[in-house]
Formats: sequence, structure tokens, C-alpha cells
Amino acid sequence: MHFFSDNATPISPAVMAAIAAADQADHGYDGDAWSARLDGAFSALFDTPVSTPVHALWIATGTAANSIALACLCPPYGGVICHEEAHIVVDECGAPGFFTHGATLMPLPGEGAKLTPDIVADRLKAIRPDVHQVPARAISITNATEYGLVYSPDEVAALGELARAHGLGFHMDGARFANAVAHLGCAPADVTWRAGVDALSFGCVKNGGMIGEALLFFGEQAAARAAEAKRWRKRSGHLFSKGRYLAAQILAMVEGDLWLANARAANAAARALAGGAAGRLLHPVQANELFIRLSADEAALLRAQGFDFYDWGEGAARLVTNWAQDAASVAPLAQALKALTDG
Amino acid sequence: MHFFSDNATPISPAVMAAIAAADQADHGYDGDAWSARLDGAFSALFDTPVSTPVHALWIATGTAANSIALACLCPPYGGVICHEEAHIVVDECGAPGFFTHGATLMPLPGEGAKLTPDIVADRLKAIRPDVHQVPARAISITNATEYGLVYSPDEVAALGELARAHGLGFHMDGARFANAVAHLGCAPADVTWRAGVDALSFGCVKNGGMIGEALLFFGEQAAARAAEAKRWRKRSGHLFSKGRYLAAQILAMVEGDLWLANARAANAAARALAGGAAGRLLHPVQANELFIRLSADEAALLRAQGFDFYDWGEGAARLVTNWAQDAASVAPLAQALKALTDG
Amino acid sequence: MHFFSDNATPISPAVMAAIAAADQADHGYDGDAWSARLDGAFSALFDTPVSTPVHALWIATGTAANSIALACLCPPYGGVICHEEAHIVVDECGAPGFFTHGATLMPLPGEGAKLTPDIVADRLKAIRPDVHQVPARAISITNATEYGLVYSPDEVAALGELARAHGLGFHMDGARFANAVAHLGCAPADVTWRAGVDALSFGCVKNGGMIGEALLFFGEQAAARAAEAKRWRKRSGHLFSKGRYLAAQILAMVEGDLWLANARAANAAARALAGGAAGRLLHPVQANELFIRLSADEAALLRAQGFDFYDWGEGAARLVTNWAQDAASVAPLAQALKALTDG
Amino acid sequence: MHFFSDNATPISPAVMAAIAAADQADHGYDGDAWSARLDGAFSALFDTPVSTPVHALWIATGTAANSIALACLCPPYGGVICHEEAHIVVDECGAPGFFTHGATLMPLPGEGAKLTPDIVADRLKAIRPDVHQVPARAISITNATEYGLVYSPDEVAALGELARAHGLGFHMDGARFANAVAHLGCAPADVTWRAGVDALSFGCVKNGGMIGEALLFFGEQAAARAAEAKRWRKRSGHLFSKGRYLAAQILAMVEGDLWLANARAANAAARALAGGAAGRLLHPVQANELFIRLSADEAALLRAQGFDFYDWGEGAARLVTNWAQDAASVAPLAQALKALTDG
Repeated sequence: MHFFSDNATPISPAVMAAIAAADQADHGYDGDAWSARLDGAFSALFDTPVSTPVHALWIATGTAANSIALACLCPPYGGVICHEEAHIVVDECGAPGFFTHGATLMPLPGEGAKLTPDIVADRLKAIRPDVHQVPARAISITNATEYGLVYSPDEVAALGELARAHGLGFHMDGARFANAVAHLGCAPADVTWRAGVDALSFGCVKNGGMIGEALLFFGEQAAARAAEAKRWRKRSGHLFSKGRYLAAQILAMVEGDLWLANARAANAAARALAGGAAGRLLHPVQANELFIRLSADEAALLRAQGFDFYDWGEGAARLVTNWAQDAASVAPLAQALKALTDG
Repeated sequence: MHFFSDNATPISPAVMAAIAAADQADHGYDGDAWSARLDGAFSALFDTPVSTPVHALWIATGTAANSIALACLCPPYGGVICHEEAHIVVDECGAPGFFTHGATLMPLPGEGAKLTPDIVADRLKAIRPDVHQVPARAISITNATEYGLVYSPDEVAALGELARAHGLGFHMDGARFANAVAHLGCAPADVTWRAGVDALSFGCVKNGGMIGEALLFFGEQAAARAAEAKRWRKRSGHLFSKGRYLAAQILAMVEGDLWLANARAANAAARALAGGAAGRLLHPVQANELFIRLSADEAALLRAQGFDFYDWGEGAARLVTNWAQDAASVAPLAQALKALTDG
Repeated sequence: MHFFSDNATPISPAVMAAIAAADQADHGYDGDAWSARLDGAFSALFDTPVSTPVHALWIATGTAANSIALACLCPPYGGVICHEEAHIVVDECGAPGFFTHGATLMPLPGEGAKLTPDIVADRLKAIRPDVHQVPARAISITNATEYGLVYSPDEVAALGELARAHGLGFHMDGARFANAVAHLGCAPADVTWRAGVDALSFGCVKNGGMIGEALLFFGEQAAARAAEAKRWRKRSGHLFSKGRYLAAQILAMVEGDLWLANARAANAAARALAGGAAGRLLHPVQANELFIRLSADEAALLRAQGFDFYDWGEGAARLVTNWAQDAASVAPLAQALKALTDG
Repeated sequence: MHFFSDNATPISPAVMAAIAAADQADHGYDGDAWSARLDGAFSALFDTPVSTPVHALWIATGTAANSIALACLCPPYGGVICHEEAHIVVDECGAPGFFTHGATLMPLPGEGAKLTPDIVADRLKAIRPDVHQVPARAISITNATEYGLVYSPDEVAALGELARAHGLGFHMDGARFANAVAHLGCAPADVTWRAGVDALSFGCVKNGGMIGEALLFFGEQAAARAAEAKRWRKRSGHLFSKGRYLAAQILAMVEGDLWLANARAANAAARALAGGAAGRLLHPVQANELFIRLSADEAALLRAQGFDFYDWGEGAARLVTNWAQDAASVAPLAQALKALTDG
């Protein structure tokens, strides 16, 4: 049983069925019937006022969604406040720099890969308002974070407030947004636009999709930003000629509650593992990732029992659960972990 | 029956089956078993010496394949010789400028969207070799061309010779490469690396795939260029986390002869239509596209009979056939066209 | 006596004196007393309403001024309508592509390197308003043109009207703006902001300066664009730490009428040469450049008499006059040209 | 008497004389007699083997020199190891990101703005060699550093060794290179190419020049990199049309020992101030900058006596001496500082 990554898992059967159902002739690019439903589906999901509907685009990957969002929020001479462990900093080979034409990431520390208003405010204060220094123009956070922690609506709103006060765009990398919402039990709107978020990378692939994430824009400037994002999508080679196959997957996720059901299953599996790993946890377990202390010998022992996962530096490991698991299915690993500890 | 575009068609059943077969757990990105087979499959198809295997990457779209190829062949201060009707010039919203960081497209005229050595040589001669002028660094051609014509191996080789003599990289946009080879009946190698081509965008989606083209590098510098292309692929948000679903489609195309069978069907359909459109053809029909003279009244008449297609300026239309058609299935339109002419 | 280029000439004594006068301690970058006078000096020269003052920056070179202007008028996915012989197209090694992050130059033909509204309107009409095609976002013209012709206020206004109607920014490359105004005898405002020009590269170096051109923004958006231009200037390494030496040169030009006096002298010299070159002129002579038919033997003969100039392709030559000449000083060449013709 | 910055000072008389001497007709750009002497002058100064001469370009500003150097050493998807207080990080508005097309600066801590091999080695070790992470491709150091410290030849060589071992380009920002060499008393070669430096931004403006720094390339790849740098220089609008006025300034500096004489004077002035500021120094004084503890009241007192300088955060100040000063001329401030302490 593998715990490498949620992207190593097969795709959700309902998503596969949606792909099959979309296998018809229709107009190319995003001129098809499925793509046309995206704005509406997300406006419903995010409970937005009719006057400011969500503008939604399918996008190839999370990296592309993040980068295109940032390109719409930050000029080339601007900076993006973010966490030093953020995916955009450490795992995208400089993609934000490519899409923004050289904007500067401004990485900050923070427990569990979370930004706090104090740390952000201090960084903003340190920037001289002259042409020699890069001005901050956006904040980007990840929810759930790279260490599996979840920002609450209040925490997001505090950063959103700071963004608004300084005229910064506010982006949320939601590669595991479903896991965050499943943990919070709140309305998706509460932790996004109601908290000041301007753009959301809404992840589907880690949550059971095959290919395709959604990029969402909220608020007054949503229409203008989405229009620009469509230019970036084309210009960066991301306008698929058979876009209906991406749109269909996303709709399968969000027109019902598949996105939440899948995330709840993965989260439950993670909680079950956390129960077995008491005393080993490097971070609280809130979404579907565990970071645990694990010696090389212990790791070898678990692998010998058929559990696959990645090391996380020396003496530690990362375990990622996925939509196809639940508390019951991961019980063997939970027990094996417990057995390690109990000796 | 629609003749809008080959991308408006459903996907080939064998490709769909390959997707289903790949729906298993495996490593993410291109660390999976399917992706690992690409170099070998294309080396076999292109009959390359063991010492210079093809280096192959799955890529989201043709636009991305073209742009990444050009980024590997041309520096930001260089120029790309191409046809003024090339897809990279008129249909990619400046994507080559994005990926090459501002390299200059150098569009040239030419019958049927084909470049000729004379026209290219004249353009090269006109460039002063000082720092004030953009130096040509690559040639890009499309085979089959945007007007459905096919470059023969000799024609490609003549341009390849010119490229080598001037130290230029040589790229072929093969969005409809299968249709070109089906028309020529030659070995794929004859019209590519044996004729001097360094990089090929190998199209699958217009030919029955769902998502995913292949980008191939040939020759001595293939390994270095492919390594760089992998950086560009990641950096531009094109490294899918479940790459096996793209690799599986491409393998389904090229490990057997599905790619050729599909293209032959589409070409046969186009020939059948050409038979009915005698006297109307704006260009010879060699692949799967027809450009015909057609008055507004005639177009309306055809549409009333259930045939859908795009106008091509005033008094003309474009008809694109696809893998799911053949001579028999398009006979009704062929007859309708003939009837228009015969009155 | 050389006619290579106006940049091969020494600098105007008044400019040298201004440099010496500025050789004092003052704040760095553009925080000095001279730089602070630029906006006012140009507002006076261009007779602008107090509500929309000219915003002026010193800039290293004409290439930089042009490129930064375009970066402020055109997004990376946009296009710039221009003449196919424009300096930005043929003599800047792709600088506009660098500064605009890959925007597309859209070169058009036109007699004497002049754009006409008809040709521009046709090009605009041919662009499909979808995301696949690059949208035009700016027009750039050169006054005087690369062939020494001058746009009249009416001609500029006609293009300005077109720009406004299509929402395009309007840039004028004025490397030889002084020569144009000297020829026209109009107010500088008449051929710029009153005719719809948004940004002007105001040339000084060809007209007797040492280092430093001015970039001017006009109209409602001038302040915002100039603020952005200051970011581009710093970011592209053009914010000199001793900016007072550039500002002083520019002020020496424009606080009096040195700029016009110098240009009149060069224009007069050109007219004198044109008188001697009757029957040889490839273009009307309106500014300080002549393009003449001249055989290789004739060119050799002139060079043997001590006249230096560049060939302009086969059987032609370019002669550029400069601020340090006038009708009298170039009389020897005028006579030599006449002698060639008269045999 | 001002201690704002070395760029607030008038230019060195010998430089002014050189400008006047260059005020003649000559070919444009870098086709003149002065520009042609640069490679030779720097090869002599840096005592390089005939087989690997220095390739030298005049460049507008230090920011441009640094950025163009980095563009020649690091691909867009690469990273540049540097100090977190480096000018390229904090004072260039993202210029390196602009010129490198989005390469990533990798800022590291270090006493006195100096990098140490240990800190660099640790950073390199932490980069995973996969396509997801930005690979380091260059190291950039500043000598003298932003806090006025000087790297010795051994210290540079240790970093050069590390660079070579990891295949990284090695750049030195020498905005105050003259002050560093004046302090070290070594041969310029010892602290540059003999220590592994590939590219040097050789500062002139802070040391008495008006406009123009030199960018130098050393070693086997120098010719190829300089050729590329000339493309970048043109493409970024830095190829002045009257380049002789820049070349002449640089030659005035380096064909004799003006560059060292000026730096020695500034360093001596700084040492004299340091003598008066005993107990207040935040960093050792090795070049021409002092960072001292100074209360707001003390600062006010000094300013009341006519000494101008910048605050450096709360309770501190920066004093920069320049070529036009020496120990004697700054004695009044040295005494005033001493008086503050002695009470």
C-alpha cells in the first residue's frame, strides 16, 4: 500500500465516467458545453452574489494555476509574499518567475508552513517605497499547507485584511483545498472570498481527478483578471484543444459533493494513521499528510511490510493518504506504526 | 456531420482503452512505467541509430510543444524563420515569444504555407551580422502545412541543408505529421532527422488523442536539448502529476500503427471530398484539410443539409476531415458539393 | 567630412558647458536639482494644461526610451503596429521584445517608412478577437521617419484617431523629433499630444547631446505610466547614479531653443545636399537624411575627395547631416554631387 | 560636507579631461578608437595570459553590469547564490530577474554581507537534483561588500573552488572593487580570475567617473560570454551611440593608476573617521564605508555642524567617503565623532 503522494493514485470512478460521457463531438478549446458550465458551477459552490460571479478556468496543473494567478496579481517588478516552504518557492522550478516575467518571491518563515499577519506585516514594513526596492504586490498562501495544516477562515481573513490595506492581491494555492474545507467544515466561501481571497487554485488531481485543476477569480476585478488569465493560458500553451475532457472532470467533482467526499476519506485515513503515530508527529494532522519521526531502521521495517512512502530528510518520513483510502483501509499501517512505538 | 476541425471529434477508442489500462497507482510526473517507454517507442518508429536515440517528452498541447522546441533552439535575442501563415505566427497568441523570452518570429511568404529555400536564403542574406539586428537562429516549418500541403523528404532536406549551413536549429510543427506521412508513404525518419530536423512536435490530439502531444529531439544534441526541455516543461506548468495518462495515449498511437491508420482514414475522407469539389480547390489536397471557393449561398445550402464547417474569409470555406471518417462516411458531403457545381 | 551618422559628431558646446556646470555634489539617481526641472521644462515646451503636465524621464538611449514606452503601452500578449523599416523592428536587436516580455511587433509597409491610416486599419480588421490571435495594443511611428520624411500634425492626428478608436496606445519615436519640428515649423504639441500621442521618445544625442534622451508621457494616464516607466528604468539598469549629468544635457537643449537651432542647421545642410543631388533622391528630403542613387564608381570618387558615408545597398548611399554643419559647410559635397551628375 | 554616497560627488578632473579629449568625430556605438582599447587596457591591468585576454565592455550602470553578467552565467530556470544583503537582492528592483528572464536569487546570510564556503555548500546540498527544484548555476559576491568588508584572495578562491566543483559561474560585483584592491594591496588578478572569478562588474562611477562601468569576462569562456553580453547590451538599450565618451572615462581610470589613487584617498578618509568612531563601529572598516551606532540626538548634533549622511535604521548611520576626500579633509568629522563619544 503506497503513501507516496495523492498523485500516485488512480482516478476516481465518477471522474472516469464523466470523461466517457464527454467523449462526443463538440467545439474545440473552451467553446464546448462543459466548459460553459464552469462559472455557474463554481458560483453555486462558492455562494457568490449574482453581481460578482466566480470566473473559472480549467488549467492543466497546479503549477500553471498558481503561476497564472500570480501573473494576474503581480507586475514583473513586484514581489509576492509567501512561505519559504511554499510549493511556488520550492517545487515549481521557478514557474512563478517565468509567468510573471521575473517578479520576486519573498519567502518568509512560519510554523507548519503557515504565514502569520505579524510576520507579513514586518516584511512589508521593511520595504523602502522607492524604485530601488521591489514592492510587494501580492500574498500567496497554501491551504492546506505543505505540512498539512489548515488556515481557518479567521486566519485567512486576517491576512486578507493586511492585503487589502496594502493594496496587495491575495492568492490561495488550493492544491488540497478540498482537504482543508473537509477539515474545517465551513462553507468554501468563508475561507476564500469572504476572507479577501482574490484568486484560488482549486485542486482536483490530487483529489481523484486525472488532468485539470480550476483557477477561480473572485470579487470586483474577477472578470478583468479572468480575461487576462485566458490570454496567459493560451500564451503558455495551456489552452487544450479538447477542453471538454478537463471541464467534465472538474464538473464531476464540484456539481455534486465528490470533491468533499473524496477529501473526507483521505482526511479520515490520515487521522487514523495519526492515531497510530502518537508521539511521532512533527506537525498536527489536519488534512491528508503526516510528517513523522521515523528512524531508518523503522522505515525499513515498515517497507518490509509493504508500506511505501518517501523519507523526509533524516529520521523522518512523509505519509500522504488519498481519496481511495479511509480509516479502515489504512488500519494495517496505523497498527504497524503503533507496534513500532509500543515495541 | 461536422467538418469544423479535427479537434472537435471524439477520441479514438484504442486511446480511451489505453487510458483505462493506465488507471493504476504509479509514480507521479514522468516517473511511471508508461513515460519510461516513450524514448524507446519513438526510437523504433523513427529508426534511429542506437548512438543517437530519440528523446521524447509528452507535452500538453501543440502550442506548448512548438514553443518549448523553439526555446531549446533559439536564444532570446535570436530569430525564427517561419511562414507568415504558420500556427506559431497566427494562432498561438505570441506563445513562442513567451517561451523564448522575446525571440523574434521572421515570417515569410510562400505558396500553400510552404517555405522554399530561395525565400529563406534571401531573408538570411538580408540580415546584417552586427549586434543591431536580430540574427536568425532557427527555422520552423509545419508538415502538413496550415493549408494541407505536404513537404516531401527532398523539400525538407533542402531546408535542412540551409539550416545546417547557417548554424540554425530546425523545427517541424507536426500537428498533422501523421497525415503528412500517410500521404507521403515514406519512413518517418526520411522526412525528419534524415532531412536535418532537430525537433519535431508530433501531434496526437487532432489524430484521435484526448490530451497530450509528443516533443521529439533528434541527433547529436538531442539529449542536451531534451534535458533543457524538461526544465521548460516543468517551469511552464506542463509537468502533469499523473503523466502516465498522457504517455499511455501516445504509446497507444505509436507502438502500433494507429497513428497512421487514423491519418489514412482522414486523408481518404479529404480526397473523397476533393473529388466532389473539383474546380473549387484553393490548394491541392494532400492531407486532411480542404480550402474551397464557396459562396455564402452555397454555404447556407450545405449547412441546411446538416454539414457544419467554418468560413474562410469571404467566398471560401475550410473543411477538415478526421480519423473517425473515411471516404464512405463523407460521401454525402462529396455529393452535395458536386451537386452545387453541377447545378 | 563625414556623413556617416549624426551620432558620429562631437557634442554641442552648450551641452558640454551644461555638463561642466552640473559637476557638483548633489543627490544620486534622479534626486538632484536638474532632474527635478525636467517635467516643468517639457510642460513649457509642449504647452500642456496644468492639469495634465508632461511627465519626463531621462533615459540612456533611444532604444531604451522606445522599449520602455512600449512596455508601458502594451502587455506581453499584445502587439505593436509599426512600420517594417522602423528602428524598433530592424535596429534594436529585439529590444522591444525584451522590455515588453515578448509582445509582438506587427510590421507594415508604407512609402518612405510612413504608416498610413488605411494600412493600419486593414491590419486591425484582420485580427480575430479571440484568444488565439495577438491583439494590437499600441501603434508606434517614427518622426522624422527612418527615410527622413516627416509626419504632419494632420497625418499624426489621423493615426491618433485610429488609436483612440481601437483603444491602442500611441508612441512616437522621436530620435529626430527636433528635425521634424524644425521642418514643420509647428508647435511641438501640434504633432504630439494634440494629435493623440501618449508617449514620445525625445531624441537629444543625434542632435548634439552626449548621453541621454528624454521619455515623455502625455495626457490623462501620463502620471501612472511615468511611475511605471520609472520602475522599468531602474529594473533595466538605466537609473544612472549621477543622473544630473543627463538631466543637465537635456535641459541645455530644451530650456532654450538649442534643440531647434541644431536641428535647423542639420536640415539646412541636408537641403543643400539635396539641391546638388537633383535626380538622385530616393525619398524627398525633409529632415537631415538623404538617400540617393549612387553607383560604386561614383561613391569611390566622392570618398577619394574626402567625403565619408555609408552605402545603402547596391547603387545607393545614405548621407546624414548633423548639428555642426549647415548649408555653407556642406557646399563642397553638394558641388561634388552636382559635378557627378553634370559629368 | 556630505557623506551620503560616493555617487553624490563630482567627477574626477582627469575623467572630465578625458571626456573633453574624446569630443571628436568617430564611429558610433563601440566602433570608435577608445572602445577598441578596452580589452587591451584591462588585459594589462589584470595581467592575463595572451591566450585568454580579458574581454571588456563599457556598461551604463552597475545594475546593468551585474544583470548582464548574470544573464551570461545563469539560465532562466537556474539560481544565483548570493548574500541576502547584496545589491542585486535589495537595491536593483529585480533587475537580475529581468535580465535572466526569471532566474531565482538564492539569498544567504553571512557576517558583514560576506558569503562563506560553508554556508554556500550547505545551500547547494539542500537542492534536490530533479526538475522540480531550481538548480544553482552561479555564485555572485560583492567586493568590497555592502557593509564595507573586503574578501581576501584566499576567501574568493575558496568560493571559486566551490563554484568550479559544482559547475557554477562566478560573478563579482565590484562597484567598489578599487576600494577592495586598495585595501588588499594585491594584484587585481589575485582576487579575480586567479581565484576563479568568471565575470567582474568593475565600478568606475562611485570612484570618480561620470557615466559608465566596465563588465569584464575572464577565462576560457570569456570570448563567448562577451559576445553574448554584447547582444544583451544592445537588446537592453545600453549600447550608447556615442560610446567613446564612456570608454574614454574608463581608460582614464585604468590606463594609469587613477582608479587606485582615488580609492586609496577614499579608504584613507574612512580609516580616519573610524579612528574617531572607536566603539561605535558595527563592522570593521576596510573600504570607504562606515556603519556606526549613532543616536538620533547625536545625528542631529552632527548635522547641525554641517555633516550630511543617511540614517541606517534606528540608532545607526552610514557614512560613505569618496575619492575627493582624504584623512585631512574629513578630520573635522573624525573630531566631531570623537567629541560625541568623549562627551
